Amino acid sequence: MSDSPSGEDKLIARFFGPIATDPGALGLTDDAAFIKPPPGTEMVLKTDAIVSGIHFFPEDPADAVAQKALRVNLSDLAAKGAKPLGFLVSLALPKEIDEAWLSAFASGLREDAATYKCPLFGGDTVRSPGPIMVSVATFGSVPEGRMVRRAGAKAGDHVFVTGTIGDAALGLKLRQGASWPLDEKQREHLLSRYLLPRPRNALTQAVLDYASASMDVSDGLAGDLAKLCRVSKVAAGIEVARVPLSDAAQAAIAHDAALIEPALTGGDDFEILCTVSPANIDRFRVAAMMARTAIADIGVIGEGEGAVFRGADGQPMTFTRASFSHF
Amino acid sequence: MSDSPSGEDKLIARFFGPIATDPGALGLTDDAAFIKPPPGTEMVLKTDAIVSGIHFFPEDPADAVAQKALRVNLSDLAAKGAKPLGFLVSLALPKEIDEAWLSAFASGLREDAATYKCPLFGGDTVRSPGPIMVSVATFGSVPEGRMVRRAGAKAGDHVFVTGTIGDAALGLKLRQGASWPLDEKQREHLLSRYLLPRPRNALTQAVLDYASASMDVSDGLAGDLAKLCRVSKVAAGIEVARVPLSDAAQAAIAHDAALIEPALTGGDDFEILCTVSPANIDRFRVAAMMARTAIADIGVIGEGEGAVFRGADGQPMTFTRASFSHF
Repeated sequence: MSDSPSGEDKLIARFFGPIATDPGALGLTDDAAFIKPPPGTEMVLKTDAIVSGIHFFPEDPADAVAQKALRVNLSDLAAKGAKPLGFLVSLALPKEIDEAWLSAFASGLREDAATYKCPLFGGDTVRSPGPIMVSVATFGSVPEGRMVRRAGAKAGDHVFVTGTIGDAALGLKLRQGASWPLDEKQREHLLSRYLLPRPRNALTQAVLDYASASMDVSDGLAGDLAKLCRVSKVAAGIEVARVPLSDAAQAAIAHDAALIEPALTGGDDFEILCTVSPANIDRFRVAAMMARTAIADIGVIGEGEGAVFRGADGQPMTFTRASFSHF
Repeated sequence: MSDSPSGEDKLIARFFGPIATDPGALGLTDDAAFIKPPPGTEMVLKTDAIVSGIHFFPEDPADAVAQKALRVNLSDLAAKGAKPLGFLVSLALPKEIDEAWLSAFASGLREDAATYKCPLFGGDTVRSPGPIMVSVATFGSVPEGRMVRRAGAKAGDHVFVTGTIGDAALGLKLRQGASWPLDEKQREHLLSRYLLPRPRNALTQAVLDYASASMDVSDGLAGDLAKLCRVSKVAAGIEVARVPLSDAAQAAIAHDAALIEPALTGGDDFEILCTVSPANIDRFRVAAMMARTAIADIGVIGEGEGAVFRGADGQPMTFTRASFSHF
């Protein structure tokens, strides 16, 4: 009988083999891979999936789809203070997908695997009668016992977020047909933030060293902060005026003030939300500066329950829906 | 604003929390989990996905779907000589899925997590406009540097398989409407072997101790053996008469001799295929007996290329298609 590789094996070897740069991945020629976490560390594990028509548009470029799938996971590692070690990917593909799509997908993945030093350790490619789905499982390393949790925020801690909030949610509205008086650069900014997360892995060490609690913002700032407060058993008071907004988001909100709500509750920011004790704030600021990552102090943690967002008028805002859920 | 958990969080806490029994899973209340492999070991990593309409039938019971998704991964760990440490799961669900389905799915998963000592470390549940897809990433442990590879078979080694071959492929044909003169028990046997793999994790230690090369049979014995030979750079000669067949498979083949081909080339066996050097064969046999796992010596490894299956007439068989691929 023939000993030539099957279609799937050939496809994997050709497109994904070059991303499997770690010796433990055995060039994807085996059923499994092996890895030994560095001495004194433990492994942080995370899985997140994206589905066409839900988390991205069917017409999005394949390289961006691959990068989104990996980056939503890398964002979690960053928020946990974990350095990427590698990832596994499961790819469900409809029949229409051609080699050009796969080639672009693999090249997006390869680029990010190099950028984030996160090589591929294995994958599974299956046929699906439905939409494209990409499920990634990432693993990273933290010094033993040091993974930064959602629980851990204490009364008196300050609340920080990286980058800017709300861009992706507004970008999604643009994709869905919203029309606001934005210039081309502003429009591109919001669209690109929806298309492609920019996880804050540069801030990993600062989070590990100084955050009392941390998570990434994937389901909207308001809802994710509420989750952090719930498991930390604290309350948070946020000054909306201090929430960092891009020039583009500001322009959209200046046109329609109601857009502050999707900015604060919409999903897909992939920024880090963390709390820092007063004693560590200065060091955290310096570390963030060294990591060239913008951070903003948006409020404080107190005793109690829930997260309150105070508008410019000093009054608590109420949101139609607290948290964005793709589900 | 409200601090009540979102729909997805509630659903995860209720259905999947009880399966996350390891302290590192933090009861699924965090974004990620952590794990420290036992001293002197390294981690083995694997991901495999199953899709409704491709790898299982939409009407299959939810608990069996969950167990199939986990077991196809556990089967790889067993073949690599790795003990399960835990798993991550991504679940894409169409809107029609109700709580009863999810509850049954979780209960199947919980049962297997306990049976195989493989707790849940995290998951992602996403809405899909397409079919149910379950992607599992498993991790196990082997003594450092000892993962059993596909490469490693040497001329003179004997080729072993566990259990029986071809049942699942014939079970799938029954599901697709094939009609053979089988009694009810035979029919049930083939159907159940397709519905629910029985991975050979009991044989893990014996494989680790004695196999020179190993993989699980998921894409058909003929094709998978060809893969093992290719990376080991050897040839294999198999006596078809020695390939273990269940009473049910024998009855089907007695009725239609052509069914030997799907039995040898069909997928979903989830048996272990391994090679053992002559010096280790007796010890391997004893270890398998102690592990209460049936093994059969089906042929030998030689110099050269490819896998040859010799029929009862002593002539090499030729197969229409060498290997089963869901892709």
